[in-house]
Amino acid sequence: MSRTLITGLQLIGNNFSGEGDDTFRAFDPRQQQWLPQEFREATTGEIDAALNLAAKAFPLYKKTTAAQRAAFLEAIADDIVSLGDELINVASAESGLPLPRLQGERDRTTGQLRLFANTIKEGSWVNARINTGTPDVRQMQIPIGVTGIFGASNFPLAFSVAGGDTAAALAAGCPVVFKAHPAHPHTSYLVATAIRKAILRTQMPEGVFSMVHGTSHETGQYLAAHPIVSAIAFTGSFRGGKALYETATRRAVPIPVYAEMGSVNPVFFLPGILREKGPALAMQLLQSVTLGVGQFCTNPGMFITPSEDAAAAFISALQQGIGAMSGGPMLTPGILDAYHNGIRLLQQTGAAVLGAAPDTAQQATPYLLQVSAEKALENPAICHEVFGPSSLHIHAGSIDELYQVARKLEGQLTATIHGTEADLQQHADLVDILREKAGRIIINGFPTGVAVNQSMVHGGPWPATTPAAGTSVGTAAIYRFCRPVCYQDFPAYLLPPELQDSNPMHIWRLVNGDFSNTQK
Amino acid sequence: MSRTLITGLQLIGNNFSGEGDDTFRAFDPRQQQWLPQEFREATTGEIDAALNLAAKAFPLYKKTTAAQRAAFLEAIADDIVSLGDELINVASAESGLPLPRLQGERDRTTGQLRLFANTIKEGSWVNARINTGTPDVRQMQIPIGVTGIFGASNFPLAFSVAGGDTAAALAAGCPVVFKAHPAHPHTSYLVATAIRKAILRTQMPEGVFSMVHGTSHETGQYLAAHPIVSAIAFTGSFRGGKALYETATRRAVPIPVYAEMGSVNPVFFLPGILREKGPALAMQLLQSVTLGVGQFCTNPGMFITPSEDAAAAFISALQQGIGAMSGGPMLTPGILDAYHNGIRLLQQTGAAVLGAAPDTAQQATPYLLQVSAEKALENPAICHEVFGPSSLHIHAGSIDELYQVARKLEGQLTATIHGTEADLQQHADLVDILREKAGRIIINGFPTGVAVNQSMVHGGPWPATTPAAGTSVGTAAIYRFCRPVCYQDFPAYLLPPELQDSNPMHIWRLVNGDFSNTQK
Repeated sequence: MSRTLITGLQLIGNNFSGEGDDTFRAFDPRQQQWLPQEFREATTGEIDAALNLAAKAFPLYKKTTAAQRAAFLEAIADDIVSLGDELINVASAESGLPLPRLQGERDRTTGQLRLFANTIKEGSWVNARINTGTPDVRQMQIPIGVTGIFGASNFPLAFSVAGGDTAAALAAGCPVVFKAHPAHPHTSYLVATAIRKAILRTQMPEGVFSMVHGTSHETGQYLAAHPIVSAIAFTGSFRGGKALYETATRRAVPIPVYAEMGSVNPVFFLPGILREKGPALAMQLLQSVTLGVGQFCTNPGMFITPSEDAAAAFISALQQGIGAMSGGPMLTPGILDAYHNGIRLLQQTGAAVLGAAPDTAQQATPYLLQVSAEKALENPAICHEVFGPSSLHIHAGSIDELYQVARKLEGQLTATIHGTEADLQQHADLVDILREKAGRIIINGFPTGVAVNQSMVHGGPWPATTPAAGTSVGTAAIYRFCRPVCYQDFPAYLLPPELQDSNPMHIWRLVNGDFSNTQK
Repeated sequence: MSRTLITGLQLIGNNFSGEGDDTFRAFDPRQQQWLPQEFREATTGEIDAALNLAAKAFPLYKKTTAAQRAAFLEAIADDIVSLGDELINVASAESGLPLPRLQGERDRTTGQLRLFANTIKEGSWVNARINTGTPDVRQMQIPIGVTGIFGASNFPLAFSVAGGDTAAALAAGCPVVFKAHPAHPHTSYLVATAIRKAILRTQMPEGVFSMVHGTSHETGQYLAAHPIVSAIAFTGSFRGGKALYETATRRAVPIPVYAEMGSVNPVFFLPGILREKGPALAMQLLQSVTLGVGQFCTNPGMFITPSEDAAAAFISALQQGIGAMSGGPMLTPGILDAYHNGIRLLQQTGAAVLGAAPDTAQQATPYLLQVSAEKALENPAICHEVFGPSSLHIHAGSIDELYQVARKLEGQLTATIHGTEADLQQHADLVDILREKAGRIIINGFPTGVAVNQSMVHGGPWPATTPAAGTSVGTAAIYRFCRPVCYQDFPAYLLPPELQDSNPMHIWRLVNGDFSNTQK
């Protein structure tokens, strides 16, 4: 299956290592079989070795120039591309995701790496601030230290080994010890070899990146508790993120945990637009709910309509449409089980089935469920995320009830409103309410699809993420791995280039309160 | 003593309230007597009432324009000035701080309010980011919600009721429920009346500011645990800050705690500068150590010299100079006791007295203590903060030992290096080590004196503050009370002015990756 020899080992600094005896294998969810390659679980000795190398690398890596780090990120992107079809085939086998989706995800991954490379080459991201006078004080962002980053199951490339978190941390100047997701160890291994090649090629210090395998929570907890680690980034379940948060905040020296823990991403439909184009919106909603077998953090797991009248045609179109939707294999058997259990639980707590696609063995079945706003308001647990291709219709009896649902929402990655101009003008306060609940508000669109650029926010109030003041997608993600430092009365020869009077990088700076990109 | 009637009540919204039966009084540390005015401790009912009003005020307050909030901040500054000498006299009586110091602190306090007013009027602080295309996404900082803010004992104006934290939170758009420090309740009361006047004058929503009194930790814990509170800001002891952090991170919905918990602010002296001007530096160090009876978070509580040879004249000048230093009354009897206990404990753990000023009854005596680097490295507890006019000399036997001390430091608000150009060129790596330990690095100066401007960082790695990515002084302090939100595909009429194509506020924005302050 593979042209690169996949050894199933950890990457500790620039060397592969397999000290432990415990092994695990990946599962092919389409073929419903375990893949033959054995992967070694990392021992604590190997994790220590990775962290010690990272600690040694940090003083060297933080002193690399932005251009050097950019070249490193670009080399990683190039080396990922060089893995060719093998990477895509391997990822597809162990995730069940189709090839075109993974090709797109590879583009996104290399695109992210290049976007961060461009961001640090341009340089203004450091938020340089200069106040001359007595004293002379100059501030900029510096890297926070060694980071522990966790791969997510649902994006084996873009939120994994060389994904957005790794790109942001490396761009900032932080070494990364990466905990690979056990659902895609072949893919992780291949990407780690690409990073290793880039390290050697661009002469980065050994230890700037290591990758360990682990199927147990203990590996992650060990990382979060380790004194060498200065920050954790994680994308996954609420339970997993919360456990890391608890460990990290109870250490002798607490550290930040940037955990993206999912969301139900409520979609609100206002009366006018339902009347105007309910059936068309129904089809778009179904597409968004079932896209990628619903395996997105931004999957619209809940939608709300304001009254029976306005929603009748819309609901009827949904009921007709759902039968034609296709499910598919999910990422892992565990995720598939959790999905169908989640649907059963929803029914037990009082949700009715509004419609479903036909059942297929070993595949997730798309579902629409329904519950009254009254019941949802009584029992907030009914509004928790069910990861997969389903959505829960919250059937409000009136616009007032719709507002009550909005006000009672937990923190979300996204919240969406569909409305005509008249709807939106009349219900501008709904935007206002939802702004307090989510990191991204979408008008007349769907939450799936997360643009990677300067303006994206992929984060939101607890329990969507911790802390709310972060994003794990887009260039602002770099600030999670930084802190500000102030240089007071420094002679020019000790100042970093970003803060020197001559502004050699021509970056934008706040000089005595005014923005400029010239010399001081 | 007072022309404004000081009633000793809480300010709950726009009304004064005294529901509880427990009272306390303030102490005059110069006259060594309790002041007559009784202050009521807040009941949990009063705190609930303040928080409920704040929660009601938030949706209104966040919609005020930047110009309206700026006018509010400026009105607070004006109304503080209008309190005249009474404020200064009252603050002096209950803090023991001299009048000129308090006049300066009042200027700093009103200056901070006006600086934040100017910052939000200018508007670029929101970090607006726009990416046009499909989708169209636009990001800016929004206020986080209701904040609970704690007054510090050592700055009864600048880090208290209308101090930097309150100014930053109100500027961001967050209502404030303020827990007054029980050491200066008269001052707190007067400043609260000024804020109340400003609220009424500028027609801000009731509840945007309330103030409660409390002498027990329970009041603070109640605030930190309350579901209405979205962030905590605190300046004080490590124990106090840590207790709030623990409560806030263990809530059902965790919230950020911005705690400034103090620091020993190490000062490193390199060999060349000691030879060149040891005695002069000794006098400057003594001034910094004893300034304001040492009651600053940035007091240089520790200094390090590299060898006996280089330091001999410096140490001898310190020993001669310390006798002429004057102590003074400390803020509270508890702080005075803790200071002298701290000095005794240091001696018990092996520090020798290098010199001291003459003892004065009921006043803090300036002390210099000394310990070998070897002992300090063995026992890190010896390097903990003793709040008051003392400093611990860490006597390194060699430059290597000095580096070992630097490497072993805990997180600090500041770290300082004194050196000639030759020293600094030779020991540039010391800057590099200290940058990982502190929020502000000072060359050839002293840490006392914290400039309030765009570039200041008053923060640092744990245990100096939590989290390290914050500052409690300077305009960047506003970001502690914000989070980013992304508006996707919004029609113009729903966008905040900061994100509209026409850029009506002419703010600096990152538009498709490029900075500009023109229209899109």
